[in-house]
Amino acid sequence: MTGLLHGVIPPLTTPLTDDGDVDAASLERLCGFLITAGVDGLFVGGSSGEAALLSDDRRYRAIEIAVATAAGQVPVLAGALDTGTARVIDHAREAAKRGASAVVSTGPFYVAPHSDEVVRHFELVAAAVDVPVVAYDIPSATHTHLPFSAVARLAEMGVIAGLKDSSGDLTAFRRILGATAGTDFRVFTGSETVTDLALRLGAHGQVPGLGNVDPEGYVRLGRLAAAGDWAAAAAEQERLLRVFAIVDVADRRRIGFTAAALGAFKAAQYLRGVIENPRCADPLLPLVDAEFDAIRTILVTEGVDVRR
Amino acid sequence: MTGLLHGVIPPLTTPLTDDGDVDAASLERLCGFLITAGVDGLFVGGSSGEAALLSDDRRYRAIEIAVATAAGQVPVLAGALDTGTARVIDHAREAAKRGASAVVSTGPFYVAPHSDEVVRHFELVAAAVDVPVVAYDIPSATHTHLPFSAVARLAEMGVIAGLKDSSGDLTAFRRILGATAGTDFRVFTGSETVTDLALRLGAHGQVPGLGNVDPEGYVRLGRLAAAGDWAAAAAEQERLLRVFAIVDVADRRRIGFTAAALGAFKAAQYLRGVIENPRCADPLLPLVDAEFDAIRTILVTEGVDVRR
Amino acid sequence: MTGLLHGVIPPLTTPLTDDGDVDAASLERLCGFLITAGVDGLFVGGSSGEAALLSDDRRYRAIEIAVATAAGQVPVLAGALDTGTARVIDHAREAAKRGASAVVSTGPFYVAPHSDEVVRHFELVAAAVDVPVVAYDIPSATHTHLPFSAVARLAEMGVIAGLKDSSGDLTAFRRILGATAGTDFRVFTGSETVTDLALRLGAHGQVPGLGNVDPEGYVRLGRLAAAGDWAAAAAEQERLLRVFAIVDVADRRRIGFTAAALGAFKAAQYLRGVIENPRCADPLLPLVDAEFDAIRTILVTEGVDVRR
Amino acid sequence: MTGLLHGVIPPLTTPLTDDGDVDAASLERLCGFLITAGVDGLFVGGSSGEAALLSDDRRYRAIEIAVATAAGQVPVLAGALDTGTARVIDHAREAAKRGASAVVSTGPFYVAPHSDEVVRHFELVAAAVDVPVVAYDIPSATHTHLPFSAVARLAEMGVIAGLKDSSGDLTAFRRILGATAGTDFRVFTGSETVTDLALRLGAHGQVPGLGNVDPEGYVRLGRLAAAGDWAAAAAEQERLLRVFAIVDVADRRRIGFTAAALGAFKAAQYLRGVIENPRCADPLLPLVDAEFDAIRTILVTEGVDVRR
Repeated sequence: MTGLLHGVIPPLTTPLTDDGDVDAASLERLCGFLITAGVDGLFVGGSSGEAALLSDDRRYRAIEIAVATAAGQVPVLAGALDTGTARVIDHAREAAKRGASAVVSTGPFYVAPHSDEVVRHFELVAAAVDVPVVAYDIPSATHTHLPFSAVARLAEMGVIAGLKDSSGDLTAFRRILGATAGTDFRVFTGSETVTDLALRLGAHGQVPGLGNVDPEGYVRLGRLAAAGDWAAAAAEQERLLRVFAIVDVADRRRIGFTAAALGAFKAAQYLRGVIENPRCADPLLPLVDAEFDAIRTILVTEGVDVRR
Repeated sequence: MTGLLHGVIPPLTTPLTDDGDVDAASLERLCGFLITAGVDGLFVGGSSGEAALLSDDRRYRAIEIAVATAAGQVPVLAGALDTGTARVIDHAREAAKRGASAVVSTGPFYVAPHSDEVVRHFELVAAAVDVPVVAYDIPSATHTHLPFSAVARLAEMGVIAGLKDSSGDLTAFRRILGATAGTDFRVFTGSETVTDLALRLGAHGQVPGLGNVDPEGYVRLGRLAAAGDWAAAAAEQERLLRVFAIVDVADRRRIGFTAAALGAFKAAQYLRGVIENPRCADPLLPLVDAEFDAIRTILVTEGVDVRR
Repeated sequence: MTGLLHGVIPPLTTPLTDDGDVDAASLERLCGFLITAGVDGLFVGGSSGEAALLSDDRRYRAIEIAVATAAGQVPVLAGALDTGTARVIDHAREAAKRGASAVVSTGPFYVAPHSDEVVRHFELVAAAVDVPVVAYDIPSATHTHLPFSAVARLAEMGVIAGLKDSSGDLTAFRRILGATAGTDFRVFTGSETVTDLALRLGAHGQVPGLGNVDPEGYVRLGRLAAAGDWAAAAAEQERLLRVFAIVDVADRRRIGFTAAALGAFKAAQYLRGVIENPRCADPLLPLVDAEFDAIRTILVTEGVDVRR
Repeated sequence: MTGLLHGVIPPLTTPLTDDGDVDAASLERLCGFLITAGVDGLFVGGSSGEAALLSDDRRYRAIEIAVATAAGQVPVLAGALDTGTARVIDHAREAAKRGASAVVSTGPFYVAPHSDEVVRHFELVAAAVDVPVVAYDIPSATHTHLPFSAVARLAEMGVIAGLKDSSGDLTAFRRILGATAGTDFRVFTGSETVTDLALRLGAHGQVPGLGNVDPEGYVRLGRLAAAGDWAAAAAEQERLLRVFAIVDVADRRRIGFTAAALGAFKAAQYLRGVIENPRCADPLLPLVDAEFDAIRTILVTEGVDVRR
């Protein structure tokens, strides 16, 4: 199955109802919207899915809905985000049980692990589940960069099937691609803004949060890259960079970075008519009307179809 | 019950068996050892308890054992450590159900919250449980300092009952003591090494990780401080600072900081005959024999009773 | 001469004229104001003196004025702040030539030195001048904490005569005091807000930036501490903590932290009638009238004599 | 003259004699070596030139030698690295007087400036000299990222002529290229390892530290990029990435990062027969023989011509 992981795999937001439950109808609609746009996989329960803010029940419910809606059309990756090995294993097992094609785990956080402890973490997680494990490097959230040596070793040992790199460090990205060239190891970029460069370096796929908002754009970008039309890919990327400005709309004196970014994704999905309620999980605070208007303007200007 | 929170409240390690289960006999012995030493409370499921590395089942089992062993002699505080509000609430409810006297929560982490979102987090947690909520500031783990303004506001609104400050910032500590003076709000220091200074500033209690190893020392320190014998308190503190050198024994080229520090606490507890197995939770790597010897030497030199 | 370094040694601001020159009359008045208040030394050309923003000529002019005005009544320490060893040596020699009693140097910054390279830096600086060298730990500015092992080694070798610790880390402070107890090594705190605690630990002196504004307060604090009247010292410290709120007055959406803090010191000195012009060096932006008013209110409320 | 700035502009090391003086003969040879290799400019007195560790005299001497040796064949940019505006202006004037074609300045560091203070810094520097000013973003050294808004504003106002970006952040790089497209503003990458990607994005030139060691490689990379042969450019870049491994050779338990990286550049220049003495400026510690051997092996393996 890992061999199949490739292409555009957006990290889905988790649509919520007024009282904070998973909004099943909206999530089904979101899955359908993305598949129709041509994505190659769905990643639920990642950072964009607000996994850090959702109870286990809601995390697992989102996986169930995505798996059922994808219905085998595309693979479903599931986040198993947690601070430590035993906790990650529990999530990974629940995800595998629900039909996830692969599970995604960061290294341990809250604690301060040694590189060898990071290796051991992934060894234990991989040994505990039958599905492939993808390592997730997102130092902006975990405050620890997955060490290159650890990732390279885990790839070489066949412990992990791939890497989702949201570090923003294209040198590290290039090095891991170089170290694993010619193998089945899969390297995905989490970037929204230099995705074309990552593809140019040989990335096997893209996991852009903004793919929640403009999946058509990232699918186009991927096709242009595959066709070797890098100038057109860059032009598409530059348009997407302008769309990405929605994350800077919210007044940061009032809400935090996560609320501003994920709130903008959900606002855009709401404006596009994909989800019913743009609210984020507690304790994130909402965007205000003027911010919705500013997001709508950006979407319209950049040719993104808006319904509301 | 909050009114009762005061004095020495060590953040217990969680003794484990070879296969990683909670070692009930050792944990009971540890509770007894601490109570006999004269502590005023037990804090289970904190950072020193490796909560970040334990499954929910084992976290809750540790709370049950501590509550049963304390048997009302001293209050039991329980950590509800997790990345987001809903997850913290789930832990807090499980802890309260098992008889915890209070629950302890950090602000959200992994995400990047605004100060007002931190306030909202604690409001929601406090509203969800009947036991007092203590805020936990540990930026070395969460990478976000609880903002002074948020803590002061939460204290004034009566949302949180107290603060455990492991930030190392005595100016912030002094400010929060000043802002809450004359109220029931309780301010605890998480320091092992300037505990006497925190008490001098008016701290209501101490939650030192090293209290797992040398509870007699911190109890003495607390009594000397209460008696106003600050010179003797400082001398005791300086002895404890020398004992604290056990966390620097392990070779950091081989294991991480958390493994070095918590491994040293458990090694010392093992050497003192309190716990049966000094292992930490996965994926932390163990100390080696020479490091155990070095720890034994420090303990013996500083007058800490060793059995092994 | 090092043996004489002790007590309150404020890190003087550098008063400037409209066109950015050193305002000699104001600096003389500032020196006199501080000496009259009872300080035990003057430190020119430190962080509070905006040394990082002053040309060599103006740095050296400030030293000349301070030395001439002090006229042997109290020792004058001079900052030799720069990124690397050769540059620090040049400043140190110019300072010594102008009569500085001691020179103060951070470790190298901009570059990323090893602990042994920090040791070598101070060895070379100390070998180049005949006056004592004081090491300056200010990680908020240099982004490198002077390693404990380096400071302890330099103290033991007699290379440096003392340490000015502006790290805010009282554990490190306690450790260096412990490691150098019984020697001539001098440990100074750069704290404005836990100065009493540092004195309690055995600090030989205090170098508080706020001493520019309220030297009478720090002199009183030092005398109360020397007399062992710690309760009165704490009360004085708490008053000074309230005065220190002047650094939080400026709107940080408009100016940076350095401009806010040093601008507040200079505004207060201007309001007290000590200096003629509250401007900071380029490119720092000025405080606005409402901020001056807020600072005046704080000063008056806390019993600081104001003339304007 | 700014209009002429483009292509490969290596940031020269500063060869030193045994006693730490500028080794004029070696520096002349280095300039010649680079010009022969086909570079389009020389940048002296930057981070790779150890400007932070050199006295003013030696900094200025290096500029004189480079200007004299270049003799108008290629422009010479000169670093004016310092903590504050007045100090930068002094260096910039000395550089301009000695014939530098442009001067390069970071934002203020040691202090913590607001974005508007960064703008003001560059306005004052640019107003003080007749040569173009290039802004230098190197947060690994200054610990402050030049804010995008400040750079964009300075570019639009025509205050700065260009940007040298050593931040590693290609999204920011892309944004500034986008904001200044169609103008004379010049954007240079300081990357050694994703230089091809920066050129692909439209960078006007490259300032790679490793260009000291393998200028032929970067010149080839530039030509391949200009010819649109991106596959060959990537292959050349990947070879250069393997050469760049020389900076990881030194044992970091013994020396710091700067000594390891700049020491490796100088070791390679020494092995290539370009400079006579591989020593770095005080207080950086030297590489050992085995490290020289490891560097020689890398150079030989990657086809870099070695003489020693």
